[in-house]
Amino acid sequence: MSQNTQILLKRQSAGVPVAADFETTTAPMPAAGEGELLCETLYLSLDPYLRGKISGRHLSGAILPGDLMAGEAISRVVDSKHADFAPGDLIRAHTGWQSHSTLPAAEARRVDPSLAPLSTFLGVLGMPGLTAYAGLLRLGEPVAGDTVLVSAASGAVGSMVGQIAMQKGCRAIGIAGAPEKCAWVKDTAGFADCVSYKTGNLREQLDECSPDGFDLYFDNVGGDTLQAAMERLRLGARVVLCGLMAQYNTTEMPPGPNPAWIIKARATVRGMVVYDHEDLRETFVKEVSGWLREGKIHYLEDRTSGLENAAEAFSRLMRGDNVGKAIVVVGDE
Amino acid sequence: MSQNTQILLKRQSAGVPVAADFETTTAPMPAAGEGELLCETLYLSLDPYLRGKISGRHLSGAILPGDLMAGEAISRVVDSKHADFAPGDLIRAHTGWQSHSTLPAAEARRVDPSLAPLSTFLGVLGMPGLTAYAGLLRLGEPVAGDTVLVSAASGAVGSMVGQIAMQKGCRAIGIAGAPEKCAWVKDTAGFADCVSYKTGNLREQLDECSPDGFDLYFDNVGGDTLQAAMERLRLGARVVLCGLMAQYNTTEMPPGPNPAWIIKARATVRGMVVYDHEDLRETFVKEVSGWLREGKIHYLEDRTSGLENAAEAFSRLMRGDNVGKAIVVVGDE
Repeated sequence: MSQNTQILLKRQSAGVPVAADFETTTAPMPAAGEGELLCETLYLSLDPYLRGKISGRHLSGAILPGDLMAGEAISRVVDSKHADFAPGDLIRAHTGWQSHSTLPAAEARRVDPSLAPLSTFLGVLGMPGLTAYAGLLRLGEPVAGDTVLVSAASGAVGSMVGQIAMQKGCRAIGIAGAPEKCAWVKDTAGFADCVSYKTGNLREQLDECSPDGFDLYFDNVGGDTLQAAMERLRLGARVVLCGLMAQYNTTEMPPGPNPAWIIKARATVRGMVVYDHEDLRETFVKEVSGWLREGKIHYLEDRTSGLENAAEAFSRLMRGDNVGKAIVVVGDE
Repeated sequence: MSQNTQILLKRQSAGVPVAADFETTTAPMPAAGEGELLCETLYLSLDPYLRGKISGRHLSGAILPGDLMAGEAISRVVDSKHADFAPGDLIRAHTGWQSHSTLPAAEARRVDPSLAPLSTFLGVLGMPGLTAYAGLLRLGEPVAGDTVLVSAASGAVGSMVGQIAMQKGCRAIGIAGAPEKCAWVKDTAGFADCVSYKTGNLREQLDECSPDGFDLYFDNVGGDTLQAAMERLRLGARVVLCGLMAQYNTTEMPPGPNPAWIIKARATVRGMVVYDHEDLRETFVKEVSGWLREGKIHYLEDRTSGLENAAEAFSRLMRGDNVGKAIVVVGDE
């Protein structure tokens, strides 16, 4: 076997990350110790929370210059020193931006390729899907007939929030950037409407597609989009705060909406962190993979080939120029 | 009978209301029509939400220049044209800033003077008490052992929040302004601690009295106090947003805390409006009047004698110079 290719953080990004913030290195091929697995990476997931880790502001810990870039991946077991796994097994684990990895078997989660395409275990059936599922159903408490608004609606989390809401009898409205993203959200994902904050007045468009406001708002961005949504909550509305795309690239924490909006709507606002909802994973995979096989769930993948292109793909994701779940194809299935 | 004394709003206040924003007038003594009561006002309640009505920003509607000032009062029935009430009955109703009033019997709520002193039906057993009771118990979901933080802790709502929390096995910490208010909160109301935002660094003092943060924050003020509390939420914390004292006198809506604080703590934040919790009134009066008779609940009244002094008393309340529930003694028990 050859060497292990790794991508390290070179320096803390200022603003939107650029490829020069990262560097590619090679290391000797690792070997599995007792109780460990040696794996080859097939699909690497790129997610916005990584930007928070680079700033040292994410609750899962910091990535420092010189560190291997973190990230979840789907891998194939090459060598196993644990009775529960054998070469050829497919697993999901936080193995980072590298072509090969070793890890304790306890940190690997088996994925079942008969349920859905492998890469979906990083997207609609993975962390973004579970975020949408648990955040919407457990924290958002949707009721059939609710009008559900979601931002970053063409993204991995947002598109699932709307589609799960529709499965539960709700009306889904999206907010996205580029008009082609909005078109996909409406025409393919089947949302009742999707407004673009880039091509018109956000508040006017929201008022147009739901003059009475919203029963549930699932926020992936914060900033002015959150403000506009808070102004339009119906009585008893629920708000799920899940992502802060508007401030991941900033150095300062901007203020948020005035508390009067929450009081006025007698709203319930909850903070969502997916790690708290691991107990729902099995139910989630079962229910959503069923919908997926029935053709009820649509998803987009923004695929990049080659680990060496991961940094540029991450930069594109953080500029909002991706369309769908950002995946790097690292190895061959 | 002589005339009815009334206090009208003369002009919309700019900033903190002053006595010159109001004017005293006299009107002919009214008479009870069919199904109505004629009442003489005994105790008039002054509450911060009235400032919002003067700005036209309160959800219960605006008070315009020329209007009778609104407010809840305890009154004695002088004449009744309704079978359910007789002269001498004691009632609670939104009769406004006047010495006498007529109102449909359906708008009057009987109060039972055997339970507690009459004026408490405007304070600990009235709207502020119900606000504290329903806000804390229904929206805050306190658990025995929780550390509960409340702002405006010597106020009518805040002092009850802490005392009810203690009855439920929680540890109560208060925030108040003047040191003598803090002293009352600690020494008489029995809070574990009460910090003054006027005599020291609020954040340092909060960290000192609860280094691990707070399980529940009941906010009566908004502004920087809310910000400081949001930075100190424990995992799974609950926040009840109830009052906005910091912005009642302003013309602009200041921003609020960044949503990241809610996400970080996986907090649940709820907006409280007391009108939604009228169904709890009976349970509340029964439970709290029991505690009151057992000497478990302490309260302060900031009494002003004479309807003609109501405007100055309201100004004092809105400057935060009152100590305890603001009551105007209008008539003799």
